[in-house]
Amino acid sequence: MTEPSSAPTEAPVTTVAFVLYPGLTPLDMVGPLQVIGALAELVPGFRTVVVGERIEPMDSDIPLKLVPSHTFEDMPDPYALIVPGGFQPTLAAMADEGLLRKLREAAARAEVVGSVCTGSLLLGAAGLLEGREATSHWMYRDLLARFGATPVARRWVEDGPVITAAGVSAGVDMALHLVDRLAGREAARTVQLFLEYDPEPPLGPVDWTPVDAGAFVPFAEENLRASLADHPALLARLTG
Amino acid sequence: MTEPSSAPTEAPVTTVAFVLYPGLTPLDMVGPLQVIGALAELVPGFRTVVVGERIEPMDSDIPLKLVPSHTFEDMPDPYALIVPGGFQPTLAAMADEGLLRKLREAAARAEVVGSVCTGSLLLGAAGLLEGREATSHWMYRDLLARFGATPVARRWVEDGPVITAAGVSAGVDMALHLVDRLAGREAARTVQLFLEYDPEPPLGPVDWTPVDAGAFVPFAEENLRASLADHPALLARLTG
Repeated sequence: MTEPSSAPTEAPVTTVAFVLYPGLTPLDMVGPLQVIGALAELVPGFRTVVVGERIEPMDSDIPLKLVPSHTFEDMPDPYALIVPGGFQPTLAAMADEGLLRKLREAAARAEVVGSVCTGSLLLGAAGLLEGREATSHWMYRDLLARFGATPVARRWVEDGPVITAAGVSAGVDMALHLVDRLAGREAARTVQLFLEYDPEPPLGPVDWTPVDAGAFVPFAEENLRASLADHPALLARLTG
Repeated sequence: MTEPSSAPTEAPVTTVAFVLYPGLTPLDMVGPLQVIGALAELVPGFRTVVVGERIEPMDSDIPLKLVPSHTFEDMPDPYALIVPGGFQPTLAAMADEGLLRKLREAAARAEVVGSVCTGSLLLGAAGLLEGREATSHWMYRDLLARFGATPVARRWVEDGPVITAAGVSAGVDMALHLVDRLAGREAARTVQLFLEYDPEPPLGPVDWTPVDAGAFVPFAEENLRASLADHPALLARLTG
């Protein structure tokens, strides 16, 4: 018989943490968060948290403010830390040393560090992609080389403890892969079924043949200049 | 010459409004909102708003609170009003007469009324689906018949001014179709490219052949009973 006074054995919980910061693209975070959240509903032992520098409403790139559930200080040690991307505010955040320090500290507490879209630029700026293969939004992917990473044009890229997804919507695919890895194929299929993720883009998949990524370089550089005007050294490192 | 005192001519703005209410599934809203938001960034004359009963942080089904941009009273007349879905809180909201009245009033100001996932159950409960073909999350789709609609198993269904999408992730496909309709094929392709919506579900598309929707009926009914325990008449209408 168990001693009545013995503490209940707590099953270990696998936490996946998503980083929220002002100005991000919510779909980068909400897509994979909803996938891992469904896993947590369906299979015991998983939990999601949303972590920010402060627990307060933060602007995004759509007319929606978002509030995290935890600060970096009070979040449980995560199995995985996922950094979503965005447009100009994310580019500007590459120079936010306070945020980058929090990312480095949180990454040191995690077994897996991941990103969606230009979130990989924040991992790069934090020094977390050196020597790794990684991806990003197609328009900014080549910039990863400036952080010592090898850019790869795939939907998601796994290199040791680092997993990065392509632009915005790619986080859903990456998260389903994580579910497969963490809880197996049947769990991943069930999550996919519950989210009815059976995509039918009305105009079909992206046709990459007419997309001239080079033609977007001036646009991408213009956004870097606008976002990093006060950080000439970083700007030179990225555009020089 | 223009009179100096003449008012500038304001170009008409097409507003797409997304309804936020406590407990919803954020991806239902954020997916299509991000699509229409990209249209608004790329093409002049479009705008998104997020409308709620109060401008305050609202819980969702993941550890993330969301804050709307407008109340129903102060939102501009929308071209389209889109109602996202969710799980038990959405089922419970079918009995929230205050919210249903706001939905009816807002729908009367819109040219198009739409939904994602179980959001169609709220449209149905508000009396907005009578005589229409419509869809919903596969697990609750047949319930639409109880509101006088004809359930259709498609990714999204358009019937006159009513457009409804299937479960959770289907809102992205529906929204790209709306962009195509509102701004043309090239705009839709550009939005899709910017969101890098080129899905690669790691286990492939949903295989519907082994999915026995009938086996989920007790689970769906159990959730209806839990959500509508205090509303026996509505519960009987939906499960009787």
